[in-house]
Amino acid sequence: MTTLGNKKQLQERAAQVIPGGMYGHQSIKFLTDDFPQFYARAQGAYLWDVDGHRYIDYLCAYGPNLFGYGHPQIEAAAARQQALGDTMTGPTALMVELAEEWVKQVKHADWAMFARNGADANNIALVTARAYKGRRKVLLATGAYHGAATWNTPAPAGITPEDRAHIVYFDYNDVDSLEAAVKSVAGDVAAIYATPFRHEVLHDQFLPSAAYARAVRRLCDEQDALMVVDEVRTGLRLSRTGSWDHFDVQPDLSCWGKTIGGGHAIAMLLGNDKARQAAQDIFVTGSFWYSATPMAAALETLKLVRSTDYLEHTHRIGDALRAGIAEQALRHGFVLKQTGPSVMPQMLFDGDNATLTLGRTWTSETVKRGAFLHPYHNMFMCAAMTDADVAHTLQATEDAFKVLKATVKLPLAA
Amino acid sequence: MTTLGNKKQLQERAAQVIPGGMYGHQSIKFLTDDFPQFYARAQGAYLWDVDGHRYIDYLCAYGPNLFGYGHPQIEAAAARQQALGDTMTGPTALMVELAEEWVKQVKHADWAMFARNGADANNIALVTARAYKGRRKVLLATGAYHGAATWNTPAPAGITPEDRAHIVYFDYNDVDSLEAAVKSVAGDVAAIYATPFRHEVLHDQFLPSAAYARAVRRLCDEQDALMVVDEVRTGLRLSRTGSWDHFDVQPDLSCWGKTIGGGHAIAMLLGNDKARQAAQDIFVTGSFWYSATPMAAALETLKLVRSTDYLEHTHRIGDALRAGIAEQALRHGFVLKQTGPSVMPQMLFDGDNATLTLGRTWTSETVKRGAFLHPYHNMFMCAAMTDADVAHTLQATEDAFKVLKATVKLPLAA
Repeated sequence: MTTLGNKKQLQERAAQVIPGGMYGHQSIKFLTDDFPQFYARAQGAYLWDVDGHRYIDYLCAYGPNLFGYGHPQIEAAAARQQALGDTMTGPTALMVELAEEWVKQVKHADWAMFARNGADANNIALVTARAYKGRRKVLLATGAYHGAATWNTPAPAGITPEDRAHIVYFDYNDVDSLEAAVKSVAGDVAAIYATPFRHEVLHDQFLPSAAYARAVRRLCDEQDALMVVDEVRTGLRLSRTGSWDHFDVQPDLSCWGKTIGGGHAIAMLLGNDKARQAAQDIFVTGSFWYSATPMAAALETLKLVRSTDYLEHTHRIGDALRAGIAEQALRHGFVLKQTGPSVMPQMLFDGDNATLTLGRTWTSETVKRGAFLHPYHNMFMCAAMTDADVAHTLQATEDAFKVLKATVKLPLAA
Repeated sequence: MTTLGNKKQLQERAAQVIPGGMYGHQSIKFLTDDFPQFYARAQGAYLWDVDGHRYIDYLCAYGPNLFGYGHPQIEAAAARQQALGDTMTGPTALMVELAEEWVKQVKHADWAMFARNGADANNIALVTARAYKGRRKVLLATGAYHGAATWNTPAPAGITPEDRAHIVYFDYNDVDSLEAAVKSVAGDVAAIYATPFRHEVLHDQFLPSAAYARAVRRLCDEQDALMVVDEVRTGLRLSRTGSWDHFDVQPDLSCWGKTIGGGHAIAMLLGNDKARQAAQDIFVTGSFWYSATPMAAALETLKLVRSTDYLEHTHRIGDALRAGIAEQALRHGFVLKQTGPSVMPQMLFDGDNATLTLGRTWTSETVKRGAFLHPYHNMFMCAAMTDADVAHTLQATEDAFKVLKATVKLPLAA
């Protein structure tokens, strides 16, 4: 049945049989036409679209690609397990082993549960936290993304007020705001959700203060509520363990997805002994949550996490890219805000307009030159990226700055 | 890191690092110790546990195994795609093709959306239905399972009243009850969820009447609400198309999972043009919803659905097993209720007590003899099952009836 087509043909066909032509974070309606949409293959740090263009991929599948697409060791482990059995009538020994290894890996963890979507992990955490003491209120930073479930999806369509009746918002990294939110529902706090750092689309990223991280922990303790850290986007990129270990702040629950399966679909909730009974009392499940192949891939991924310098390498590559682009921006007279950890960079132009003319034009030019940068979503480094890839990218960004200078008149109209 | 162990060792290890030792439908705390829990491999209709026992597997991974574990054609298609790329920065052409093929396959469908869990499909349907006209009420049959989300999970722990503020219950296959439920919230009905037939754990299964199926459709039309049919458990087993096609009743939305990926993890929402704008307005997504490998497997599975006699074969095998067991039960003086379609059989003993002494003893004896029957969950037939497997199973059930007669005194105390 396979009949491959180019992007235009596929877009026309998709418009017929997929609502809006595409949905979720894969909708590219906000990108210019230069961006690719459908892909033919991927290897290491590279991605080829259906029209034969190759890109150095700084989206990394929106996170999952950490060790390079098609990593031979991960793929071999997955294929070995796939030949034995993937989704069976029950789990394999790998499920126990994977739980054991992650409990060893992450300081706060005494147990693990596995699922498929990062959102599954966040949803299980929410229900577990409410089951813990029968309390209802869940505190979220305004605008923070914890998956597209009804209690958190950014679009209002199809959502009722009751879906968020017990969600209480506070400002991220603002201890006063968090304290006020806790005070407003004191005695009924089930959980405070924390994100290791602030990484929303269209916004500059920033790391929180140690004081904020400690305040989350202190307030959870005072309220006997569970502290949840959502590591779905950050996990294994900031640290080999928990992202707030450097603050010496440990959550009760942490949510993982994206990277942990080495590209294979698996998500995970880690919890401590305090939360164990609650996790045991709830009923959550999925047909494919116990499948063996992504667990084999996840075990192999964890081996690579422990045995390679992927973390130091991706941070070094990220720093090199950031420094090179910063020098170019300065030289060409642009103020490009490169925010967040360089291993998960966000790049937004100072003085850009609401439609991001600067950002879109600049990234569109890098995309044409084989470097897939995104105008408003945070990007990701992977271990397969090399100094040569950074050099290639810096040539693309240099050319893109020149085009930008030649074609866009500053300051932009609002 | 792999250190395989036998069931007892794995259970001891799991108790340390997984809440309750296991969760969801994989908790086997309600089964006797004769049942296996951890598996080493699977092939065709067979499953091997970690202690080396082989079973003819009538659970079929709780549904997903339709063409036999490790089907060569499905696995070859999946492996080919895996080598090219699975989870990438966007979809492949396969996503469009899979949507096109399913739109051709199912009468009511004009479009498709893909996800990972059957529950994802049911959740997307719920939000789409509410987005359709901005209405809130969702009508569910009491006790019907549509996934373990907060609006439907059978356990109360961690669930708030607001999670179900707009859920209205009615009795399955009872037109009066359904009409009364609709009347109670007339003008605010977003959706009525229907299940192709009644298949809850611990209960006899039954098929609905045509009058009921038509009433669901009529009431949705009168209310301008969306009719949702949850095909997650039934899909591709009752029919190659929609399960209510024989009633000539078409839903607006249908939810699919389990079988459609040929053992690979993929779920799907199908919808008609009436529901298209609503599906476009909501925001739902997942990191792994656009991955190519399960789509390749799903396309190959659909080929097998169209080109093989799997449906006739599984129904014939199911009928043969049912007839053989019925004869044995009668001869041994037991009233065994074999309910629902024989391709998804439920087997409960008449006169059994609350702890299912008859059912547990009988299935425990068949399990010991290599036929994995379940005492209270519906089972599934797969295309890899042969007449020889049925004969082997009928020898096991015959022996099990003899043991039952010799060891259990009737009537049982309540």
